[in-house]
Amino acid sequence: MEPVTNVPLFESERIDDLLTHEMKIIQSHEVFCFSMDAVLLARFASAPKRGRILDFCTGNGAIPLIMTTRTPEASFEGIEIQERLFSMASRNVALNQLEGRITMHHGDVKEAVERFGHAKFDVITCNPPYMPATSGEKNISEHFAIARHEIMLSLEDVIRVGSQLLKNGGKLAMVHRSTRLIEIITLMRQYGIEPKRMRLVYPRRDAEPNMVLIEGMRGGKPELRIQPPLIVYENGEEYCEELQEVYFGRRDSLA
Amino acid sequence: MEPVTNVPLFESERIDDLLTHEMKIIQSHEVFCFSMDAVLLARFASAPKRGRILDFCTGNGAIPLIMTTRTPEASFEGIEIQERLFSMASRNVALNQLEGRITMHHGDVKEAVERFGHAKFDVITCNPPYMPATSGEKNISEHFAIARHEIMLSLEDVIRVGSQLLKNGGKLAMVHRSTRLIEIITLMRQYGIEPKRMRLVYPRRDAEPNMVLIEGMRGGKPELRIQPPLIVYENGEEYCEELQEVYFGRRDSLA
Repeated sequence: MEPVTNVPLFESERIDDLLTHEMKIIQSHEVFCFSMDAVLLARFASAPKRGRILDFCTGNGAIPLIMTTRTPEASFEGIEIQERLFSMASRNVALNQLEGRITMHHGDVKEAVERFGHAKFDVITCNPPYMPATSGEKNISEHFAIARHEIMLSLEDVIRVGSQLLKNGGKLAMVHRSTRLIEIITLMRQYGIEPKRMRLVYPRRDAEPNMVLIEGMRGGKPELRIQPPLIVYENGEEYCEELQEVYFGRRDSLA
Repeated sequence: MEPVTNVPLFESERIDDLLTHEMKIIQSHEVFCFSMDAVLLARFASAPKRGRILDFCTGNGAIPLIMTTRTPEASFEGIEIQERLFSMASRNVALNQLEGRITMHHGDVKEAVERFGHAKFDVITCNPPYMPATSGEKNISEHFAIARHEIMLSLEDVIRVGSQLLKNGGKLAMVHRSTRLIEIITLMRQYGIEPKRMRLVYPRRDAEPNMVLIEGMRGGKPELRIQPPLIVYENGEEYCEELQEVYFGRRDSLA
């Protein structure tokens, strides 16, 4: 344990730049690092001026950390099932002196309705595990396995619990593999969330998309707005201008 | 009436190039002209080597005409409710000497199951009326109104009847406004057609899409493949290379 600005660091952890607003983030390549997907979702989700915003599967807390820069008065919460990641998320709040704006909870999203009650939130964000419980990579740590695979939480859990926690008119914003799009749309509608805004993330101009950003409204009227394509690598190896701008906080949102 | 290559032309009609394979097409700016959407769908839809392919709302027949160039042995049919357009479609078959490959039917898609029977087709294509019955343009001819508005045929009719006419494993390919995407996906699944392939048409790199090309499979397993973005105007006013290639028949398909 090595103290840095009064916030302890544990084995394998280090402090990285969050790249926006001079914010810092504790992460660990052995346990959890925030990804581009988290940055995209934090810039894509609706950020109301006021209200209560909850991040499911918050990991080390990157999404609420970034989103505080977009809305000066909203209050943020995050929930994380893994104690090691919950600890990182809590220390990240302290590291950035955001105790007055973000509260981290250690617990299971599936029990969030008992914890918080029905219809309490204005926005819920979620960068969930992408992969089915049974597929892929065997040689990864339990931490990565739980973050990446639907072991503890399925897509249907996210949408069902999200719907119960949202106020009417509240929004659920997710980032996911675009191959799951039909399932996301079907489940959202099944649980009373109308898909309202979507953006596809294409790695290159001539490539199939790999990710989708999608936001639905609890009790919303049907009409989907599809936003311009987000083409990650514009010219070979460089991020497109819009992505550079949101990454480095020069642009507020991907709206 | 003015005879051209033994095929009569009626008032306001003229013969245009279909732009591919030296094909010709009779159309009329007062009654009906084929659109870019028809060309895109004819290049996007699956074109099996053999089998039976039906085009709903065939208009002057552009979609089956173009699709004959993509598959040498499949047999094509088109159905059109407007007698004036059915006449143009039939003469377009004769004009291109495709009587052995395309059969046009005059009738209502809603009665197509009684006409053809259940589970008869391998592929159904449809460039349907895009606009709700009640909206928009008042000062247009009845011909254009029926082709553009859901007066005679709703989106649900197209998908319900399509599902009944398709063999198991058969495909329904549509082009539509991208604002209707959620409705299309929901209706397809409701009627046992799984969305399998989709392509969004963005007018420009930084614009929201206006059209979607989508194909579903009767009884298919869930997994949507989203194809690369089709960005119509690449540099200002010029069609992108891929679009020029399919438009002029140098490339077979948008797959």
